[in-house]
Amino acid sequence: MDTRAILVAAGRGERMGATRPKAFLSLAGQTLLERSARALGAAPSITAVVAVVPASDVDEARDLCEALAKPCVVVAGGERRQDSVRAGLAALPSGFEGVVLVHDAARPLVSIALVEAVVQAAREHGAAIPVVPLADTIKQVGDGRIAGTVDRDRLAAAQTPQGFRLDLLARAYERAFADGVVVTDESMALERLGLPVACVPGSSRNRKLTTPDDLAWAERVLRADLGA
Amino acid sequence: MDTRAILVAAGRGERMGATRPKAFLSLAGQTLLERSARALGAAPSITAVVAVVPASDVDEARDLCEALAKPCVVVAGGERRQDSVRAGLAALPSGFEGVVLVHDAARPLVSIALVEAVVQAAREHGAAIPVVPLADTIKQVGDGRIAGTVDRDRLAAAQTPQGFRLDLLARAYERAFADGVVVTDESMALERLGLPVACVPGSSRNRKLTTPDDLAWAERVLRADLGA
Repeated sequence: MDTRAILVAAGRGERMGATRPKAFLSLAGQTLLERSARALGAAPSITAVVAVVPASDVDEARDLCEALAKPCVVVAGGERRQDSVRAGLAALPSGFEGVVLVHDAARPLVSIALVEAVVQAAREHGAAIPVVPLADTIKQVGDGRIAGTVDRDRLAAAQTPQGFRLDLLARAYERAFADGVVVTDESMALERLGLPVACVPGSSRNRKLTTPDDLAWAERVLRADLGA
Repeated sequence: MDTRAILVAAGRGERMGATRPKAFLSLAGQTLLERSARALGAAPSITAVVAVVPASDVDEARDLCEALAKPCVVVAGGERRQDSVRAGLAALPSGFEGVVLVHDAARPLVSIALVEAVVQAAREHGAAIPVVPLADTIKQVGDGRIAGTVDRDRLAAAQTPQGFRLDLLARAYERAFADGVVVTDESMALERLGLPVACVPGSSRNRKLTTPDDLAWAERVLRADLGA
């Protein structure tokens, strides 16, 4: 089954405190965009990548993605995450019928093994996402008061890449837009229609880089990989 | 109102992969135990500290705590967190009637401002804990499937120090032990009795140090403080 990846790189990344969009920040000499696109392209199942970037940065992104081993199309994203994902879906070749992965450019340390696990589970179940356990005690809050403690064994934090049969994701997205619903990830668009989504074990290394601290952490991880 | 702190330092800290209990690991030249005890003692409202450590490490902890500016009693902890907290409560002077804070030694970067905010809120409301927003998309999971997306605006992650009027905490603990209930934090013991617990804004700097990565992060924070 042909499998392609949409790389969401259109975020402003305000919490980084930088002047460039987050995907264009450098991590050990390469932008997050390049590192994430390479990580996806390194997975044998992925045949091509669609990178979705801010409209003002399409040309630069095309230059950066030229050297990738797999074909990479660059398109302009939209205001919200779901607008960008929709732009990515529209850039898939007409007649494409396989599995599509949606991945955050802010997770550049994703492993080949994790990408392939999501691909396999999405092919088998129609939809699959990586999740990791929650480390903290989680409280329900309201009006400045604690309303209770949540059983964290029944909760998990979602990561990307999230993988879907294209027909399921396209249908779920059409419905979310038609209903005016904001989804915080792609899985949520399917969940609200009652469509099954499988989970696979995510990885602490696949952390979303949100703050300068996160970027420093990723630099250390990459240095350790090199034995430096 | 007299206010004392119980410092929970009896954890083994398996995820650190070290041979010493976590509170005895070094962070920029001082153990987590010393740093946490100093952080609590630096808050003007705190008059004394009870440190609860593994039975085998009581003597070493007494040596480490000798140099503190505020009185510090060291006692042996128990198997579970709640056993250690109970040992700490038993070490408070008889007749003590004020507010007690319970703090994890694994959160050595807590600020004076946060300690004082918890003390003030606990004095006012009887019980208060610091919470921080959740950064990730949170899913309900079961049987390897995603059951739904949780509205994270109504959830928060609990931190320490957690502060309580002693009479309320003692009552809640008695009931938890009598009922054979395991509580993952002190607040939970009050919540299950329907006692109100206020929340105050926690801090990302007050992160619980669980892995070697967390320890490296804390070293960087301390170096940055020194302008190194």
